Amino acid sequence: MTDYTLYYWPIQFRGQIVRAVLAASGADWDEAGMQPTADLRAALPAEQPVPHMGPPVLADHAAGTTLSQMPAILGYLGRRHGLMPGDPGLAAMSDKIVADANDVLYEMTLYNGAQMWTAAAWADYRPRLARWMTLFEETGRRHGLSAEGGTLLGTGAPGIADLTAATLWGVMTDRFPALRPMLDATTPALAALCDRVRARPDQADLQRWSDARFGDAWCGGQIEASLRTVLEAAGTSDDTPQAG
Amino acid sequence: MTDYTLYYWPIQFRGQIVRAVLAASGADWDEAGMQPTADLRAALPAEQPVPHMGPPVLADHAAGTTLSQMPAILGYLGRRHGLMPGDPGLAAMSDKIVADANDVLYEMTLYNGAQMWTAAAWADYRPRLARWMTLFEETGRRHGLSAEGGTLLGTGAPGIADLTAATLWGVMTDRFPALRPMLDATTPALAALCDRVRARPDQADLQRWSDARFGDAWCGGQIEASLRTVLEAAGTSDDTPQAG
Repeated sequence: MTDYTLYYWPIQFRGQIVRAVLAASGADWDEAGMQPTADLRAALPAEQPVPHMGPPVLADHAAGTTLSQMPAILGYLGRRHGLMPGDPGLAAMSDKIVADANDVLYEMTLYNGAQMWTAAAWADYRPRLARWMTLFEETGRRHGLSAEGGTLLGTGAPGIADLTAATLWGVMTDRFPALRPMLDATTPALAALCDRVRARPDQADLQRWSDARFGDAWCGGQIEASLRTVLEAAGTSDDTPQAG
Repeated sequence: MTDYTLYYWPIQFRGQIVRAVLAASGADWDEAGMQPTADLRAALPAEQPVPHMGPPVLADHAAGTTLSQMPAILGYLGRRHGLMPGDPGLAAMSDKIVADANDVLYEMTLYNGAQMWTAAAWADYRPRLARWMTLFEETGRRHGLSAEGGTLLGTGAPGIADLTAATLWGVMTDRFPALRPMLDATTPALAALCDRVRARPDQADLQRWSDARFGDAWCGGQIEASLRTVLEAAGTSDDTPQAG
């Protein structure tokens, strides 16, 4: 029996942050896979192991607990595996980074695919995406983020904040290389943090495993197709990063 | 000097859950008001007291800490004022309820007004809103929710989970009375919980103060206008609750 079972779609996206934390904590987990995740999501609330609207859902077998909601799962894992700051203010900032990441994932998929990207919508959104990057970097800078370390981001042993920031921005720019120059130019310290965290053996192993299992998919579906289309079109006319 | 300053719009909505927790903890706070909140939001990240995309923002004057993101603020206040369960699994479920509430607020405003409600969109959404209600009630039921109490929702001294659930559903159905029959019929124990928590003197005082200060506004803006329009239209043709 593994330590955990993760119910999530066969993509990276929101669930990859949970996987990054599981990998960093040295936990074993099973992936329930596509159909069991879909079945769990469609079940009546009274029949779900935790009443939830959608994945990720994580079962902790030793504790007999099942949780949904990425921010709640990360808070739980962070406290269980010593990946949260002890200081209450820093712990709250770690929760804040997780909530920001969740918002970025909503926005990049136009709220889980409620709309599709168009060239005009992407052009409008791009400065806001740059501002999100800046919010992460500035938050790190306030807490000493540098190539040598930091107390919230850039810690010697990556915690929830580091793993969330590195997975959000690192995986996004890995799946959409057209966005990497924007990250490098807008927030070089954040870009370097992503690389440092993702070069650690547990994270590099996770990335290789994920690439083999999930292929090129990031968020998947029609919304990913529309995002790839607008990024390709933007790349031919404008590949210089914009300040935001 | 008050204990806290809250930067939020002059509406109830997401910020009202922060206010409910401040009121329950017996804290004093100032409302920064509309223009300072707008100015703070528009400032460069390097000049913001906490780098953030939008309010609510809460300054804790004694701690010298400023936070953004409703879930992070609630986790911070909950731990500071003894309003979180001590058990790690229950604390994570409290975080899960907060994340669910945040999602409901996104959905009810079509992602902070990214689109406007139409009669067809509302008809499509209504079963999902009922399912959200059921998720809250079923979560409470698993933890003993009854008129006599409960360990997560319905606790003797309302914590973050109670205050979040009661403010989300209680304020929504107070501002949109057409939705109250749906709450009563779909999730009677949740509806009763809302009434019990909101009848407590600190919460009743807060509601009177909010009504006087913010009037009828819930989320405000064009999105609220579009929601009122579809609810009025639906009320004339179909005022019976639907199971979901």
